[in-house]
Amino acid sequence: MLQNIRVVLVNTSHPGNIGGAARAMKNMGLSRLVLVDPLDFPSVEAVTRASGAGDILDNARVVATLEEALVGCNLVFGTSARERRIPWPLLDPRESAKSAVEHVQQAGEVALVFGREYAGLTNEELQRCHFHVHIPADPAFSSLNLATAVQVLTYEVRMAWLAVQGMPTKMAKVESTAMLNTQPVTMDELEQFYGQLEGTLIQIGFLDPAKPRHLMTRLRRLYGRCGISKLEMNILRGILTETQKAVRGELNKRSDS
Amino acid sequence: MLQNIRVVLVNTSHPGNIGGAARAMKNMGLSRLVLVDPLDFPSVEAVTRASGAGDILDNARVVATLEEALVGCNLVFGTSARERRIPWPLLDPRESAKSAVEHVQQAGEVALVFGREYAGLTNEELQRCHFHVHIPADPAFSSLNLATAVQVLTYEVRMAWLAVQGMPTKMAKVESTAMLNTQPVTMDELEQFYGQLEGTLIQIGFLDPAKPRHLMTRLRRLYGRCGISKLEMNILRGILTETQKAVRGELNKRSDS
Repeated sequence: MLQNIRVVLVNTSHPGNIGGAARAMKNMGLSRLVLVDPLDFPSVEAVTRASGAGDILDNARVVATLEEALVGCNLVFGTSARERRIPWPLLDPRESAKSAVEHVQQAGEVALVFGREYAGLTNEELQRCHFHVHIPADPAFSSLNLATAVQVLTYEVRMAWLAVQGMPTKMAKVESTAMLNTQPVTMDELEQFYGQLEGTLIQIGFLDPAKPRHLMTRLRRLYGRCGISKLEMNILRGILTETQKAVRGELNKRSDS
Repeated sequence: MLQNIRVVLVNTSHPGNIGGAARAMKNMGLSRLVLVDPLDFPSVEAVTRASGAGDILDNARVVATLEEALVGCNLVFGTSARERRIPWPLLDPRESAKSAVEHVQQAGEVALVFGREYAGLTNEELQRCHFHVHIPADPAFSSLNLATAVQVLTYEVRMAWLAVQGMPTKMAKVESTAMLNTQPVTMDELEQFYGQLEGTLIQIGFLDPAKPRHLMTRLRRLYGRCGISKLEMNILRGILTETQKAVRGELNKRSDS
């Protein structure tokens, strides 16, 4: 079950942190590591810091973009140290872990995404996450080492996982939304939807590509937190397709006349 | 208050771990580090790994024995990876942190003691502790990196401390995701939206009033659980209005021609 929770490290600079993250994962019973465009990997330093967890490095997937790293996921947590201008659903590590474990119990796929050592995740990357996770560090010194941040989240995942063993899962607010109808959409399906949505909004003249303002961001935030099921996604995509047909269709009819 | 919880590292081999521990402590708001007979300290590597937490290294007390390190303490937790032949009061990190925080609230002095990278604490050292703390790692790979073990315990201490302070463990509540733009829509506003949505779906030919199936029910369930804000509702209504214009507009143009 825990193998359905992947750890995604974005643009990591120090291979030692990749090794430390792998060790922390293995300590907590996680195994799936995905590296988005790491600066230095594979690396001897990573293997050293991983100590016994070299197998996790060997099996790590290296991809070019966060999008690729999230394919197949339907619940994504992004770690964030800073407050943002546009607020986002925010959880602490314990709530995130609880929600992640309950999600994989329903055969979902979860990603825990960690940003760059210095810059963290970009706003665009954070907007691909359903929830932001903030480790409640001392505001005066809030930037954790990457490997220890991975340790905190994977530790909470393990605590939550141990708690649900033998205990019936009570559906909490957050994840019950993601489970309203069994099959949640994957991130790639969600991205396709956003793409079609944006295209349609431009077509009907609601979105001006020259002045997009925060429109797509706000729509991503809205739909991102809904835990859309595959069935619901089909409906939403169908509505967009019919809208496009209706508008285009009329245009064609006009040019015919 | 948290300054009455000291972190004690016994016989640390790798100065990098001392630096990592210092950083983890400072992240979590702890400041008092005691080093029992470290193999290599002070050290450049420790300062590097501490990144911004050099002050904790500068103020670290270096002593020869665990006994000296524990002077003034009246509650001592010793981390232990292995089960021992001699049974001992055993707590998990969360229980330990809770009791540590309650103790310092009573003006007590607490020590969190961490053993050697490879050998941990000796039985004699463990017998100087009131409680043993076990981080529930995967039994198949249970030895944590020293700095990440310090991170886990100090994180739990901070979570417990924030709880007794009545301080939030995150910058916003989960439920507030429904209110990201402060004002949630009212039920009547939601009903007006469903009305316009239904009308638009009929207009674009996606919904057949003769055979509505469960379409509106499903859409109500989807949008009903999103906790739509007034701002988001304006966007959604705007999209529908523009869709209707786009379609009707074309129709009018046709009837003109």
